[in-house]
Amino acid sequence: MKLLRVGPAGAERPALLDVAGIPRDISALVADVDGALLADPAALDRIRRAAEEGTLPAVDAPGTRIGPPLARVGKIVCIGLNYYDHATEVGAAVPAEPIVFLKAADTVVGPEDPVLIPRGSVKTDWEAELAVVIGRTARYLETDEQALAAVAGYAVANDVSEREFQLERGGQWDKGKNCETFSPLGPWLVTADEVPDPQALTVRLWVNGRLRQDGSTADQIFPVAYVVRYVSQFMTLHPGDVISTGTPAGVAMGRPEPKPYLRPGDVVEVEIEGLGRQRQELKQA
Amino acid sequence: MKLLRVGPAGAERPALLDVAGIPRDISALVADVDGALLADPAALDRIRRAAEEGTLPAVDAPGTRIGPPLARVGKIVCIGLNYYDHATEVGAAVPAEPIVFLKAADTVVGPEDPVLIPRGSVKTDWEAELAVVIGRTARYLETDEQALAAVAGYAVANDVSEREFQLERGGQWDKGKNCETFSPLGPWLVTADEVPDPQALTVRLWVNGRLRQDGSTADQIFPVAYVVRYVSQFMTLHPGDVISTGTPAGVAMGRPEPKPYLRPGDVVEVEIEGLGRQRQELKQA
Repeated sequence: MKLLRVGPAGAERPALLDVAGIPRDISALVADVDGALLADPAALDRIRRAAEEGTLPAVDAPGTRIGPPLARVGKIVCIGLNYYDHATEVGAAVPAEPIVFLKAADTVVGPEDPVLIPRGSVKTDWEAELAVVIGRTARYLETDEQALAAVAGYAVANDVSEREFQLERGGQWDKGKNCETFSPLGPWLVTADEVPDPQALTVRLWVNGRLRQDGSTADQIFPVAYVVRYVSQFMTLHPGDVISTGTPAGVAMGRPEPKPYLRPGDVVEVEIEGLGRQRQELKQA
Repeated sequence: MKLLRVGPAGAERPALLDVAGIPRDISALVADVDGALLADPAALDRIRRAAEEGTLPAVDAPGTRIGPPLARVGKIVCIGLNYYDHATEVGAAVPAEPIVFLKAADTVVGPEDPVLIPRGSVKTDWEAELAVVIGRTARYLETDEQALAAVAGYAVANDVSEREFQLERGGQWDKGKNCETFSPLGPWLVTADEVPDPQALTVRLWVNGRLRQDGSTADQIFPVAYVVRYVSQFMTLHPGDVISTGTPAGVAMGRPEPKPYLRPGDVVEVEIEGLGRQRQELKQA
């Protein structure tokens, strides 16, 4: 299933994208698309059955805003330098084990919401990423099978990053990763049953129509199952948590000077095979 | 006011500590102690008036568990190496500007809950810290006055840290900061009006009765007002967010070999002048 949330920011209604690409209102069946839903197989089955019966009403305001496909996001665990070509382009060594950092849930916006360039920023950059949405509490997992069983679904993410804040302002990356609007998510949360192999997805990103990232999750240094199992050794994952699994080559930071960092008016589009497409316009904060 | 939350984990009731040190039930006045309450001066006034009138009932189960004094914690922004003596003891340079990293809200536990030593951990360490609780949205603040006006109150925190995970397992600190139970908070949220000078508080920590940290917020490299203003340049602070402002000297990592890292059965106590005292027993996860 492709789950989504439509409506004004903070007042989105849960919906299901039907096979014809039409959002169907599921607010009569479930309260929202959140960790509680993802941890509740019976509720997910109710949606599935109603979809099969064709009884779900279309969302009554087509053309309305699409919000993030997950309400009440828990934590966002990000994996750094997880593609061979991206590590190379930024001059970093291939990590011996996953690099982990956090983004706060309050950075999440919808897939077509504006992204704000922070005041004083001159190095706002993009990162197309496969986001993994957790549906089951995961703690000290022992096998890849347990890890994949904890995954409720997948979504497109843009791990927007301010490189000066991240790398030149002292110590830790988080300072350049948690600016407001820095985590566009969606359009859809695609349940794991529709993604038979998360390591065979093309990941692409365009800036102003120009293809800048063109990768595949086949090139991830640490694949999804490994990452989920690994992270669960250090922190407990809860339903509604998100793991953003790193970005392939092609970020602005990896280009020759003058590096094409984002400016107000730029348009970023991100697409992952089967998971839909985002589009953000950059604005000044 | 000293606000607290009492009851079983996940089912705490809001309370006020009266001048005699007795928790008074305020659940008839407010839904909980959370960002929404802290952003609502009228609701805080209701509590204050009821306290003055002496009409609040005692919490009916004295001796019950004290939970974290804040529900629905947003993000926890931590400041690294923010005391001169702590930077020295761990062999780090004094930072030119605040080092910022995040802890996830799901690491928060009550002030007397057990702290779990992660599986495989041999370097679980303590960090007594002054926690600042945000009560007003803070974004690109320009003055120290605006910064202090965004502070709803203060609490005791223990920024429990696994040093191997933090420093020897690749890249970023977050991996050693977000293990379950790693953020004991409380016992109280003391409103800012009762803390006239947040830069004049003693911060002490004992392990098994032995004094290990004995500092003062007077020695913070970046004081509270500076930190709040600084962080607001990089991320938006929301009511219910917490800033943990760093730890003074005396952590296990800063001691000669063999360093006294925590082991199951150890008891950690943390106290900040006027903000109360925590006590955690260490257990194996």
